[in-house]
Amino acid sequence: MTQHPVRFGLLGSGRIGQVHAASMAANPSAELAWVADPFINGARDLASRFGGRATENAHEVLASGEVDAILIASPTPTHVELIEAAVDRGLPVLCEKPIDLDLARVDDLRPKVRASGVPVALGFNRRFDPAFAEARGRVQAGEIGALEQLSIISRDPAAPPADYIAVSGGIFRDMTIHDFDMARFFVGDVVEVTAVGARLFDAGAKAYGDFDTAVTTLRSADGAVVTITNSRHSAIGYDQRIEAFGALGSLNVGNAPSSLVQHSDTVRVGAQSPHPAFFLERYTEAYALELAEFLRLVRGEPSTSPTFEDGRAALVLADAAQRSAEEGVAVSVALA
Amino acid sequence: MTQHPVRFGLLGSGRIGQVHAASMAANPSAELAWVADPFINGARDLASRFGGRATENAHEVLASGEVDAILIASPTPTHVELIEAAVDRGLPVLCEKPIDLDLARVDDLRPKVRASGVPVALGFNRRFDPAFAEARGRVQAGEIGALEQLSIISRDPAAPPADYIAVSGGIFRDMTIHDFDMARFFVGDVVEVTAVGARLFDAGAKAYGDFDTAVTTLRSADGAVVTITNSRHSAIGYDQRIEAFGALGSLNVGNAPSSLVQHSDTVRVGAQSPHPAFFLERYTEAYALELAEFLRLVRGEPSTSPTFEDGRAALVLADAAQRSAEEGVAVSVALA
Amino acid sequence: MTQHPVRFGLLGSGRIGQVHAASMAANPSAELAWVADPFINGARDLASRFGGRATENAHEVLASGEVDAILIASPTPTHVELIEAAVDRGLPVLCEKPIDLDLARVDDLRPKVRASGVPVALGFNRRFDPAFAEARGRVQAGEIGALEQLSIISRDPAAPPADYIAVSGGIFRDMTIHDFDMARFFVGDVVEVTAVGARLFDAGAKAYGDFDTAVTTLRSADGAVVTITNSRHSAIGYDQRIEAFGALGSLNVGNAPSSLVQHSDTVRVGAQSPHPAFFLERYTEAYALELAEFLRLVRGEPSTSPTFEDGRAALVLADAAQRSAEEGVAVSVALA
Amino acid sequence: MTQHPVRFGLLGSGRIGQVHAASMAANPSAELAWVADPFINGARDLASRFGGRATENAHEVLASGEVDAILIASPTPTHVELIEAAVDRGLPVLCEKPIDLDLARVDDLRPKVRASGVPVALGFNRRFDPAFAEARGRVQAGEIGALEQLSIISRDPAAPPADYIAVSGGIFRDMTIHDFDMARFFVGDVVEVTAVGARLFDAGAKAYGDFDTAVTTLRSADGAVVTITNSRHSAIGYDQRIEAFGALGSLNVGNAPSSLVQHSDTVRVGAQSPHPAFFLERYTEAYALELAEFLRLVRGEPSTSPTFEDGRAALVLADAAQRSAEEGVAVSVALA
Repeated sequence: MTQHPVRFGLLGSGRIGQVHAASMAANPSAELAWVADPFINGARDLASRFGGRATENAHEVLASGEVDAILIASPTPTHVELIEAAVDRGLPVLCEKPIDLDLARVDDLRPKVRASGVPVALGFNRRFDPAFAEARGRVQAGEIGALEQLSIISRDPAAPPADYIAVSGGIFRDMTIHDFDMARFFVGDVVEVTAVGARLFDAGAKAYGDFDTAVTTLRSADGAVVTITNSRHSAIGYDQRIEAFGALGSLNVGNAPSSLVQHSDTVRVGAQSPHPAFFLERYTEAYALELAEFLRLVRGEPSTSPTFEDGRAALVLADAAQRSAEEGVAVSVALA
Repeated sequence: MTQHPVRFGLLGSGRIGQVHAASMAANPSAELAWVADPFINGARDLASRFGGRATENAHEVLASGEVDAILIASPTPTHVELIEAAVDRGLPVLCEKPIDLDLARVDDLRPKVRASGVPVALGFNRRFDPAFAEARGRVQAGEIGALEQLSIISRDPAAPPADYIAVSGGIFRDMTIHDFDMARFFVGDVVEVTAVGARLFDAGAKAYGDFDTAVTTLRSADGAVVTITNSRHSAIGYDQRIEAFGALGSLNVGNAPSSLVQHSDTVRVGAQSPHPAFFLERYTEAYALELAEFLRLVRGEPSTSPTFEDGRAALVLADAAQRSAEEGVAVSVALA
Repeated sequence: MTQHPVRFGLLGSGRIGQVHAASMAANPSAELAWVADPFINGARDLASRFGGRATENAHEVLASGEVDAILIASPTPTHVELIEAAVDRGLPVLCEKPIDLDLARVDDLRPKVRASGVPVALGFNRRFDPAFAEARGRVQAGEIGALEQLSIISRDPAAPPADYIAVSGGIFRDMTIHDFDMARFFVGDVVEVTAVGARLFDAGAKAYGDFDTAVTTLRSADGAVVTITNSRHSAIGYDQRIEAFGALGSLNVGNAPSSLVQHSDTVRVGAQSPHPAFFLERYTEAYALELAEFLRLVRGEPSTSPTFEDGRAALVLADAAQRSAEEGVAVSVALA
Repeated sequence: MTQHPVRFGLLGSGRIGQVHAASMAANPSAELAWVADPFINGARDLASRFGGRATENAHEVLASGEVDAILIASPTPTHVELIEAAVDRGLPVLCEKPIDLDLARVDDLRPKVRASGVPVALGFNRRFDPAFAEARGRVQAGEIGALEQLSIISRDPAAPPADYIAVSGGIFRDMTIHDFDMARFFVGDVVEVTAVGARLFDAGAKAYGDFDTAVTTLRSADGAVVTITNSRHSAIGYDQRIEAFGALGSLNVGNAPSSLVQHSDTVRVGAQSPHPAFFLERYTEAYALELAEFLRLVRGEPSTSPTFEDGRAALVLADAAQRSAEEGVAVSVALA
């Protein structure tokens, strides 16, 4: 039952585009057929390393007839237009998060995606992290009884440049959005959002009215309470932890150490090296598994890839958190 | 420089009264002189074990002229009256938390306490836990730079009986009050409280409109954000953890294991025994250190004992959290 | 069923004598009645702090008729004579290890001890450490199946002065002797000893032909293999660990951290403070439990106190290790 | 500076041959050109999956002129002959350990290997484990001062079949040989070997006079003492740990957990899943790095690949351990 590899059109050759190109090269069921980037040198470089043809024009890829699926790794403002174009051509899409910073644009696109039946997956890579996926599976299997509290800690190593902050949509839409999806991965529907933001250290956040520090509390339809703790910086490195607390016990996913070596001396014992530098290192395996799962979706096999609806839901929660943090009120949401 | 031991009048011979009586017996600078409890057998039993005379009547102790200090370990509704009586007689007081469930009563007493100059300390024992105290000291010393986020996890092993819930004042005044004080121990003044409560498992909470699960977010005057995670039950045992996250690093205080033994077999590795059963076991050393610190206060030496004002501040935060959880709004507070 | 406290005659007022005096003071069933030390100021000081009378002459204590039991904490060369004198008077003895450095002297005393029926216990305090005792109990209960390998790591913080080394009897009789007893606590009879010694860093060891580093391998009657790893110094502090490896799993006792606080920053994560400074700190609780167990022995109750025979067995193993390390041969022993 | 990939002749298509074939496929600088195995279906299967031609005859590969290097993954008795044939043709060799079970055969081959100048590397994969390599590098860099003690724990998940034991050469030559090399990786020359073996649980070991349990103590030229603890089975899974103890501190490499998830409930806390099943899982990355290092050797670049001499040294130590365990004597060795 050998199958023709799925030929990908990769839109965007930046950092995350390179990750996906490498995943395609490593997966015998995938093939990089086209790379598009207005920064043509980036596209050419990727094509030379991982195969395929390069173009400045994403629509040339979509119209080529030489691709079976589209991976959108271009800047956020282009996502809606590119998803729509792919759906129009019946090409399955794996789109990096977020769909858009503007929920209205997402909702405009939503009916077409729904009606088309074309698979549109969202790049919530953390769902595919083996440890988080294992913890969630064990929660679903009832190992800790009813899930009552979920604690997500998510801190980036360092704040992005101020000009990135300026167009990021704010910490909730840019950074917490991953955690909103992770929360929904564990607890399903969320019905209420309460958020507290602070700007403590980042000049960009101060300049553009964003927060660099945030705590968001979610209430799920079945009563579970989720706490998301965010910071735009972290001295100890990328800080990605989850603790699920249930009626019968708890499951804890700690940070991945960068090595198994522990050092002890006269002043401290058991010291390990800091955590992997950032998401590319921490989630290497997750990106590969994400692509593999999307390949199942493309082939019409049962797949757990997060969907366009998951992407929209995370954005709804981000909007609610933004409003809660600004106005000091709990915000009810209806995701159904 | 030998000194006469401080002669204590202990009001209340219940569980926590017994802890303090044992601490007195073990401390050569303290002496149990009188024990009062309307349940006279309890008082007699304590006196026979740890010394002193027993009475049904707290005021007999206060009037005896045979005590140098008062330790109030009687039911909460009696605290205000007993503090007042002790202060009237110039007797230093160590009072179990909370001062009262009703802030108005506390505020009525407040001017007299302030004016009297009589030391009134509050029994926030956790400040004296060596690990928490060490972490706080290292934060104060600047080891992790500016403190940006503080996470307090505080879960009891099992919910109290429903009739206790009925008169407890609610989870924020009864249980979180310790965590409010711990937050202030680390961050100083708190200016805003946001709380989310849920009733997920406890019949008492449901019957009396209380929460059994809560997440409270505090904002401090200098911007730090504190998250307090509470549950009235915990399968893994008493769950008491703190993580301080600063600009330069973090300090983490985990649970105390009940033994150093780890077990591994074919299905799991590194398993330890659950955490100490409850506060008497977890904070044994803290209670002894609390008494020692109070003795310094009694003797007019420099002391870090939490004060009546600290007790009031925790209650103000509890009231604010209650309102926030009920109304879904962030509540500003002014503690100064 | 109150009982008269056991009145102790304490012979020796040095560091370990002080530990025992404090344990007596804290145990309501014990009472320090007499302290003897040729260094009379030491004896007087102990008596003033913990009660009892002071003398320069141990035999005055033995003859006083005012003691129910003897605790020998004097220098090793006096042990045999003092045990004998106590046994002659029918006084139960708790003697610090080792009985003597010379097995011949121990064997000369042995028939009298045996014939007397007077309880003679040896101060192998580590048996009473809660973690080691728990691990041993779980091994005995079959939790890890047949015990196949036992690893004991035992390192002192720093080497003793050279003049102590000169009279210590060597590392095996002075330091490993505790580990020999611990091995026997887990595996019972030992039938073969193989030891490798090295002198790597300590001037005293070099000067007096002793080892500062040693690895000893024991074979038990039922085949289990024990490895004892010793060093006279340890940068990380007192290093006291045991791992029991069985057919069904393993039990591991790690070092006791000096606090629950972990520190993380940009260069290291999870660092804890070094281990408790030395045996007095690490085994505080064990010394108290050791005394309590000896009190049961004195009262004729069932007791697990290690005996004179255990003290002799450890010395036999030390002699065998010394010979093995010197001659490069495995040495068979017969302990029965 | 692109280079032609190194074309490999792989001799042996069993479990370890498959690992190397996969490493070649994943390394752009390597190419599987030929696979030889008398079990021709195995060779064909590998060739179909990873490229190259298949043959029953290793000498056809050697004579093909189509390979740049040889990887020997055939049964141990064939190693000497195949190394010699490769060296005769000037083909660099990476040979799985051990070179042979018979030191005499190794020594017969030795002069030719030395004289030839053809690189012959030994497959001591553990040297390439990132954690062990990091620890060794930090020891070499002086981070813990002079290395005084090294503890290697190495236990297989389960004993091999009895017929494997029969031809294995015994636990020291078959299993400990990896640990002998690891010891030399850390301490350099070894001058003395003391070993204690036991047969406790394995029918194969009993039937063929082998040990299933062993403790080996090595003394290095500069005085460091190494302890190697082996067992042919391990309930907790593949047990691979190293602790380096130096004058200034220690470096500890623990087992690799199979996931980051920890589970806690009412009876145990912090339980992790057992360790990776066996060497293929534990050392996946090490095998890839081993191949990469060998490629440097093939290209004449500086390389740290262990050599024929390292392979011989490990066998010398194994022979010494066997003799020590059988005769109960410390055995001196001269590796230079």
